[in-house]
Amino acid sequence: MKTKTSFFAETIAIGSELLVGGRVDTNSVFIADKLASVGIVLRFKSIVGDQKQDIAHAIRVAVRRADVVLMTGGLGPTVDDCTREAVASATGYRLTRRREALDMMTTRLAQWGRTPSPTQLRQAMIPTGATVLNNPIGSAPGFSLIWKKTLLFVLPGVPREMEPMVVHEVVPRLQAWLSDHRRTSTTPIIRQVFHTFGLPESDVDAKLRGLLPGGVKIDLGLLASPMEVMVSLTTRGTGAPKHRKAGHGAMAEDALLPFAREIRARLGDWLFGEGADTLEEVVGRTLSTRGLTLAVAESCTGGLISHRLTQVPGSSVYLDRGVVCYSNQSKMDMLGVSEKMLARYGAVSAEVASAMAKGIRERGLVSIGLSVTGIAGPGGATATKPVGLVYVGLDTGTGGNKTQEFHFHGDRSTIKLRSSQAALDLLRRWLITSGHT
Amino acid sequence: MKTKTSFFAETIAIGSELLVGGRVDTNSVFIADKLASVGIVLRFKSIVGDQKQDIAHAIRVAVRRADVVLMTGGLGPTVDDCTREAVASATGYRLTRRREALDMMTTRLAQWGRTPSPTQLRQAMIPTGATVLNNPIGSAPGFSLIWKKTLLFVLPGVPREMEPMVVHEVVPRLQAWLSDHRRTSTTPIIRQVFHTFGLPESDVDAKLRGLLPGGVKIDLGLLASPMEVMVSLTTRGTGAPKHRKAGHGAMAEDALLPFAREIRARLGDWLFGEGADTLEEVVGRTLSTRGLTLAVAESCTGGLISHRLTQVPGSSVYLDRGVVCYSNQSKMDMLGVSEKMLARYGAVSAEVASAMAKGIRERGLVSIGLSVTGIAGPGGATATKPVGLVYVGLDTGTGGNKTQEFHFHGDRSTIKLRSSQAALDLLRRWLITSGHT
Repeated sequence: MKTKTSFFAETIAIGSELLVGGRVDTNSVFIADKLASVGIVLRFKSIVGDQKQDIAHAIRVAVRRADVVLMTGGLGPTVDDCTREAVASATGYRLTRRREALDMMTTRLAQWGRTPSPTQLRQAMIPTGATVLNNPIGSAPGFSLIWKKTLLFVLPGVPREMEPMVVHEVVPRLQAWLSDHRRTSTTPIIRQVFHTFGLPESDVDAKLRGLLPGGVKIDLGLLASPMEVMVSLTTRGTGAPKHRKAGHGAMAEDALLPFAREIRARLGDWLFGEGADTLEEVVGRTLSTRGLTLAVAESCTGGLISHRLTQVPGSSVYLDRGVVCYSNQSKMDMLGVSEKMLARYGAVSAEVASAMAKGIRERGLVSIGLSVTGIAGPGGATATKPVGLVYVGLDTGTGGNKTQEFHFHGDRSTIKLRSSQAALDLLRRWLITSGHT
Repeated sequence: MKTKTSFFAETIAIGSELLVGGRVDTNSVFIADKLASVGIVLRFKSIVGDQKQDIAHAIRVAVRRADVVLMTGGLGPTVDDCTREAVASATGYRLTRRREALDMMTTRLAQWGRTPSPTQLRQAMIPTGATVLNNPIGSAPGFSLIWKKTLLFVLPGVPREMEPMVVHEVVPRLQAWLSDHRRTSTTPIIRQVFHTFGLPESDVDAKLRGLLPGGVKIDLGLLASPMEVMVSLTTRGTGAPKHRKAGHGAMAEDALLPFAREIRARLGDWLFGEGADTLEEVVGRTLSTRGLTLAVAESCTGGLISHRLTQVPGSSVYLDRGVVCYSNQSKMDMLGVSEKMLARYGAVSAEVASAMAKGIRERGLVSIGLSVTGIAGPGGATATKPVGLVYVGLDTGTGGNKTQEFHFHGDRSTIKLRSSQAALDLLRRWLITSGHT
């Protein structure tokens, strides 16, 4: 499967908890991104438990079908951690205690006022011929080696140790190795991602029909989830000669440019963000830039909107407060919703959503009040109000107010997620409109 | 690797979005559970994109090392979906349009008032000799076949289609196949899980030292994450003769019983739950049983505690309200924290945590007020108050009040998670103590 023009990678995630403990391997998501940035295609992912023979088997399979193999996990000090031994067994390279590895470990532990325990000394056992990789966070060094022309990287499984090691140890070595192995320099895979909310996948598909003329080497992808329909464009550089190195990324991005522009034009304000944008960051940035402040009143989302907004560093600048008003009494006490209104329209109604938004805005003395009330289920439905009925409200005082009705499907957690997205999207749309005036 | 006493499985998840789209394979988590229930050990997971040759390669590798292979994804109607073709290519079985598959599809589509489109007809193409598996939710039938003595199941990737198919189509076939292949009946793998919070992993380890006497065929596992240290016991039945079938699960559970009891004794109140318990469910159950009500005041957790509590269906019975008081003004307005106190001790202090808990309890007219204030970072630290300094407070009126100081490490998201866990755990501990009096 090896060719000289495309380089393929495989990840191997090691740990029995990834097979039976309900955990999933997320390290490979981070790694896939970094590989793409240097033009390497992630082609297979393998996940294996803590058995030495199974890890060795996965290594042998990976080395046959990939040019680069990145292993994560099983480098700890306990007997469960046998990745080092598995690499030795698969490759035939002997493990020896390596001075550099021991020094790194000793230095790291000394920072915490500790010395290596006898079991930790195992972490300095490295296959002969391997290069030791510095772990800037934890005590377990990583290593890399070449076996049967495949480049193997062995890294700890803890994300906050693995991630800086990929950036500072793996990527530079990959770049050097790539430029040794082909006349053309690395041509990054360029992937551009667009996030929409509010349109069903089939409508997004219809809007993008005929976007790419035949023969263009660009892939268009659509991916629906409860929070969005994601659109992606993927291409890679054309492998121009070495002296044009600096221009490659730019060239590939240039190729996407007209199509990215067309996507923006066709999707218009259904598009809420691009790349790593989240909706809470997008609205946060606008609020921050325009010096607006926000307060949130949540019923069925139960605090999720505030939680999402406060995931963004610096959100304290624009988010003044939030209330979770689960009981009717709390809607009256904290937001001034009248008992009469609750009795007449019910807590799940456009009228109450509107009153909640006004109430939180006035009490918070903020620019914008945002509210949600709905039935997340599985209980709480009535003959006229089914599970999934949700109202969002927005009040901006003299800037106007609006409410919107939604009918969501799914379990409690999905309905909460979609409701929070709908509320933030209503806010985003108001920010666009009011920004134009 | 095949033996007659242990049967091993491999999952293959198919879809390019699982390699580059930031998605992770979670279908295999559901499948691992169901396999364990019939005594089959999940030994490898593979993840591969939409390329036919790569899927075929993954099948060939899996068939060599597993007795059972479960594939998910790539059964849709578009040209991207080539799992059917990959199975045909790997096994050499020809694809033909199968009457049963077509009938199933037609029936399903008719329920939605539709007829199969030309592209959907592809979904009725099934390898010769394969058994068609009914999809009770979607239009794509699955299938199973035996190749090189390995049992292959091919299922759609959409979880709500895949899950009922595993339960109703795969598990019964596995049970029949297992009883054909060994004299002893299926001996389920029994796994018991315990959740602790507050003790470092090394302390949990020390408390459990010597728990399992030598020679006992039970595995003890420890797994640390920001939210807990999880302890697990895993064993499997002893393969008793067929006529004792009914008793097997119970036998294996009996074997764990004394050790589970010992774990509970040694870990005491560090243990917050078992099995699928979450801390929010555990406190929710106790509040509900004892008829207590709760209100929450959050600063640095930004709504996360309310969000977690309201993930539990029926939480409206005990959760009256929550406030997210990000600004000092909101702490004064909504909780009655005095300006003097904020000036004197600062918003992040035991005094303010205590006043917040009292304020929300009194305003909500509830049994218990719970509060958190802290510095989630990356900004906001001062010379005396570092990122990760967190205070939680609990006020129960005549039932007393307490505050607790924490120093957490990690990024903003981790500190929010750990703070929410610390607050819920303080509540859990108070519920235990107060329940005894």
